[in-house]
Amino acid sequence: MGELIGKVVESTLYYVPKSEFDRVRALNEASAPEKTRIFADMCRLNTLYMIARAGSGHIGSSFSSLDVVSWLYLNELKNDDLYFSSKGHDAPGLYSVLIALGKLPFDKLHGLRRLGGLPGHPDVGVPGMVINSGSLGMGISKAKGMVRADRLRGHERRYYVLTGDGELQEGQIWESLISAANAGMGEITAIVDHNKLQSDYRVSQTSDLGDLPAKFKSFGWHVERCDGHDFDAFSAALRACEAHPGKPQVIIADTVKGRGVSFMEHTALDSDTDMYRFHSGAPDADSYGRGAQELLDHVNRALSRIGVARLSLESVEPPAKAAPGTTKRLMPAYTEALLARAAKDDRIIGLDADLVLDTGLIPFKEKFPDRFVECGIAEMDMVSQAGGMALEGLIPICHSFGCFLSTRPNEQIYNNATERTKVLYVGSLAGLIPAAPGHSHQSLRDISALTSVPGLDIVEPCCPEEVPLLLDYLLGTKRSGYLRLISVPWPVLFAYPAERLIEGQGVVLWQKDKPAVAIVTYGLITTAEAYKAAEELADEGIDALIIECPFLNRIDGAWFADKLEGVKLLVTIDNHYVNGGFGDQLLSALAREGACLSPRVVRLGIDDMPSSGQPAEVLGHHGLDSASLKVRIRQELKG
Amino acid sequence: MGELIGKVVESTLYYVPKSEFDRVRALNEASAPEKTRIFADMCRLNTLYMIARAGSGHIGSSFSSLDVVSWLYLNELKNDDLYFSSKGHDAPGLYSVLIALGKLPFDKLHGLRRLGGLPGHPDVGVPGMVINSGSLGMGISKAKGMVRADRLRGHERRYYVLTGDGELQEGQIWESLISAANAGMGEITAIVDHNKLQSDYRVSQTSDLGDLPAKFKSFGWHVERCDGHDFDAFSAALRACEAHPGKPQVIIADTVKGRGVSFMEHTALDSDTDMYRFHSGAPDADSYGRGAQELLDHVNRALSRIGVARLSLESVEPPAKAAPGTTKRLMPAYTEALLARAAKDDRIIGLDADLVLDTGLIPFKEKFPDRFVECGIAEMDMVSQAGGMALEGLIPICHSFGCFLSTRPNEQIYNNATERTKVLYVGSLAGLIPAAPGHSHQSLRDISALTSVPGLDIVEPCCPEEVPLLLDYLLGTKRSGYLRLISVPWPVLFAYPAERLIEGQGVVLWQKDKPAVAIVTYGLITTAEAYKAAEELADEGIDALIIECPFLNRIDGAWFADKLEGVKLLVTIDNHYVNGGFGDQLLSALAREGACLSPRVVRLGIDDMPSSGQPAEVLGHHGLDSASLKVRIRQELKG
Repeated sequence: MGELIGKVVESTLYYVPKSEFDRVRALNEASAPEKTRIFADMCRLNTLYMIARAGSGHIGSSFSSLDVVSWLYLNELKNDDLYFSSKGHDAPGLYSVLIALGKLPFDKLHGLRRLGGLPGHPDVGVPGMVINSGSLGMGISKAKGMVRADRLRGHERRYYVLTGDGELQEGQIWESLISAANAGMGEITAIVDHNKLQSDYRVSQTSDLGDLPAKFKSFGWHVERCDGHDFDAFSAALRACEAHPGKPQVIIADTVKGRGVSFMEHTALDSDTDMYRFHSGAPDADSYGRGAQELLDHVNRALSRIGVARLSLESVEPPAKAAPGTTKRLMPAYTEALLARAAKDDRIIGLDADLVLDTGLIPFKEKFPDRFVECGIAEMDMVSQAGGMALEGLIPICHSFGCFLSTRPNEQIYNNATERTKVLYVGSLAGLIPAAPGHSHQSLRDISALTSVPGLDIVEPCCPEEVPLLLDYLLGTKRSGYLRLISVPWPVLFAYPAERLIEGQGVVLWQKDKPAVAIVTYGLITTAEAYKAAEELADEGIDALIIECPFLNRIDGAWFADKLEGVKLLVTIDNHYVNGGFGDQLLSALAREGACLSPRVVRLGIDDMPSSGQPAEVLGHHGLDSASLKVRIRQELKG
Repeated sequence: MGELIGKVVESTLYYVPKSEFDRVRALNEASAPEKTRIFADMCRLNTLYMIARAGSGHIGSSFSSLDVVSWLYLNELKNDDLYFSSKGHDAPGLYSVLIALGKLPFDKLHGLRRLGGLPGHPDVGVPGMVINSGSLGMGISKAKGMVRADRLRGHERRYYVLTGDGELQEGQIWESLISAANAGMGEITAIVDHNKLQSDYRVSQTSDLGDLPAKFKSFGWHVERCDGHDFDAFSAALRACEAHPGKPQVIIADTVKGRGVSFMEHTALDSDTDMYRFHSGAPDADSYGRGAQELLDHVNRALSRIGVARLSLESVEPPAKAAPGTTKRLMPAYTEALLARAAKDDRIIGLDADLVLDTGLIPFKEKFPDRFVECGIAEMDMVSQAGGMALEGLIPICHSFGCFLSTRPNEQIYNNATERTKVLYVGSLAGLIPAAPGHSHQSLRDISALTSVPGLDIVEPCCPEEVPLLLDYLLGTKRSGYLRLISVPWPVLFAYPAERLIEGQGVVLWQKDKPAVAIVTYGLITTAEAYKAAEELADEGIDALIIECPFLNRIDGAWFADKLEGVKLLVTIDNHYVNGGFGDQLLSALAREGACLSPRVVRLGIDDMPSSGQPAEVLGHHGLDSASLKVRIRQELKG
């Protein structure tokens, strides 16, 4: 599920125009498999273009699934039949198919991971997207609900649901298989994109799937297996599935991750334990250029074999990239702090759910191999395993993206809490940004989802310097804790003043004698933006007080009441949905102190579904960048 | 998982004293199987006593598992070996074994489901309880974490983990099997208490398990199968497991639900589709008497066969039961309201996760069989299926207990919300009461866990009359909704005055001209208690304002600011953890209105782990009954 912002390729980018797809689809000279092969490679070219231009995206699984997806759209889907991907990482590949077929406007090709464009994972707001995915394991369940609706209405159609292989580690997959078999849901054909690699490493190295055909068979599904890049074999498997209309069917399609570009294919890895480089992120300029050339060569060779004209590409200069400025990062600070504490305390165990790169755990894994547990994409199991370790006196630290860690094993986290043991949870990729992967990956509910868990502190650092202070705070109590970490780098203008933290109290970053406005916020991004706004407002003669509060559900109302006395406007900023976020907690704490609140209180944050796009544009869209903050504060002080 | 409060048996109750267990354990005349048989039936007698005295408890699975549990404790567990139950419903049976062996103080026998006694589901605070359970599917994961801790420390021991068969519908079970096999966790022997029935009906009728041995085998586990009431067979299965030290093993123990009392055995059911009566709840006086006599006869026949004295029982008169008074119930009102709406709108689909009795769905199932979907114990799958139905324009309504429904499929609920479809969720057994089942079943985090979900209204009725108003409200918007329902009956003194509800506003139930204190609360129990307190405070000359607010995350701050103007003390009462509950939301809404809050604001509710026990004693313990409220209000007005 890895997501890191890559670098946008700055050299010329090439894409296949719609007219060329139309030409190839109309070729009478080619057989269906030949035509599909050419079409799929043209889609790979466009997929590579989209991802290189966006600066991030999932090449590996887009490429591994593109033959299957192309075959289905060109040769199989009839009437109202539906195809969708349960994993959703392969969205760029699917977009490129839909764009080639005119099912999506062609200009969307240029808008992957941009505001108003195509989100990093599927959203039903985009034509052709049947379900929202990106959080794993839900696709077969969704199809089952749709089949039940069809049956009620006498509507006959087939569902083709693509799953990952790593995704099969999620319990919901197996949960969903049971009643599909009992209800004889022959309308569903699941296709496993068995590309052998998950986010970080080989599936077999992460959490081996064992005898996959036997597993599906034992769950009452009809099983076929084929080479997922061999169209004749895939077509034969589909025909064999049709012969079992009373049973749900699964085709285990053996595929190659990164298929189509030799050096992106997982089979090019030197060893079983190498990390695969093209799961997410973006290709560098060299990889882009060589990859595009290779794909073009494939297509042209095939076109020349059937004696028609070579492919005509269009080109574009990528948008100029803003200078990044000096940025700070939290993840390296976390890795460093964790290593130092783990060296002194052998009770500390690191658990990961297939995001070892993104969660900064690789050095921990290397230094403390016995105390590192790779759980695979199995968050519920990870959290309950951690509970078992904690009962034995260890200090387990569970890692994943905040969006998954706070919600998929939500009941398991509570169950651990009721045992009054100590378990730490580290949720990275917290908050709105990077917005490019889309809402499945924007962790905007984690504070709310965990704030009621008794004996669990939620904390978030605003800068690298605060990370070790908070880790020490969490390790130093008997309570459990959730450390919320933003994963992207961000420009930070302030010097962090605190040397120690006091539970429930904030850190004053900017203060004028008699400030008119106070902003209370937390975390790397909104703290930096608030500080920047304060600097600039000062130039206009508006004095501000900026307090950063790393304690998100344990707030010292008296301390804040004292600090905020006399301000005319109090602004809370949540990098989270406003309902149930830090702002609510702060305002409640102030009210309970009998603090007569400012005449004006404004609670900023996300109040409806977050947008997807590039960081700066999305932050601005939601009114949370320094420019928007200044405008809002001026307005509020006037009104 | 069903839990309903039964009636305490009011005639004399009988139990086996500790001395008789000691006598039987010391018998040299009997073989291990003979002795274990007698011991297990004595434990059944005490289990029946505990449950009859408590007025609720799980007879069926306590009895089905008692032979397995007795055999393990008397003949297998060595040194630090651990046994625990993943499902946890069978806690009364396990308690009776631990009490018989002196591992739990004998007087705990009289304290099942009482404050300071033994909770309805396992809690590690009780000696001999290894993990907290009652929420399903976590046991094998917990054992895995403990095995990892043991391996780190070179500590050798075995884990015996009991699971239910219905429990195998939970995805976490299959998630947990995968890495256990990969890590070669031969230390773990899982035992499936395959008693063929789940909460409501036969497993095969609910969500059939299919070829269970093949499933476990395909997941890499060594599989044995035996009659779980045949000690020789069970012992042989354990020996066979020991022959596979490099693999986790599972014994599928075929058992009879309610084993030991002829008319409680599931095999006594007349048909495959009959509902089983002894899953939870309590036996009536007649069932208790006949059941106890049958067990006593078994034991005495066995004792006489080996030529020793008959069993000597002790007896006790059950505690007098307080008169219940006139109570009101929400669940019948919900059933009635649902049936009426469903009759007019055929898009409404009812989904259940094996709690069809407790969630009031049986009449719906009977009247609209095509629009009822029994999902089994598979909440994630249920919620995602509902999402699929909603994408097709149906209006699915998912049912379970609030504790499970808001947390196990938390990410799935959010995924549905991001599709902007309409799905309703009905969480019953909401709040602190009934406290007897213990914290796994006390839904005290559901508001917080769901409040941030965009486009989802959380509402809760304070009386039966408000149920149809809220159901109409939820059905009448385009948004999704969560209807929070208290399951127990409660005495209600007020006449409900509202004929319609206005979004975000409350209902004034009691108002004096210039009230000193305002209480804002919601739901059947705390509203009733607040009203009662207001009536009684009025007699003391303390005037109150009581507002009931059914909208828990969509609050009209301006309306409340107006109503609350001038009160000296504002008390919010949450039937929920205070952090992240309704009180926080109300106080935040008031602050944003610029309402200068009362000089004193008190936020009542649950602030740490809830207690388990009988409703009245637990409500008083947490300071939420009318008597405690009066005391607190007097104090606050003085201070």
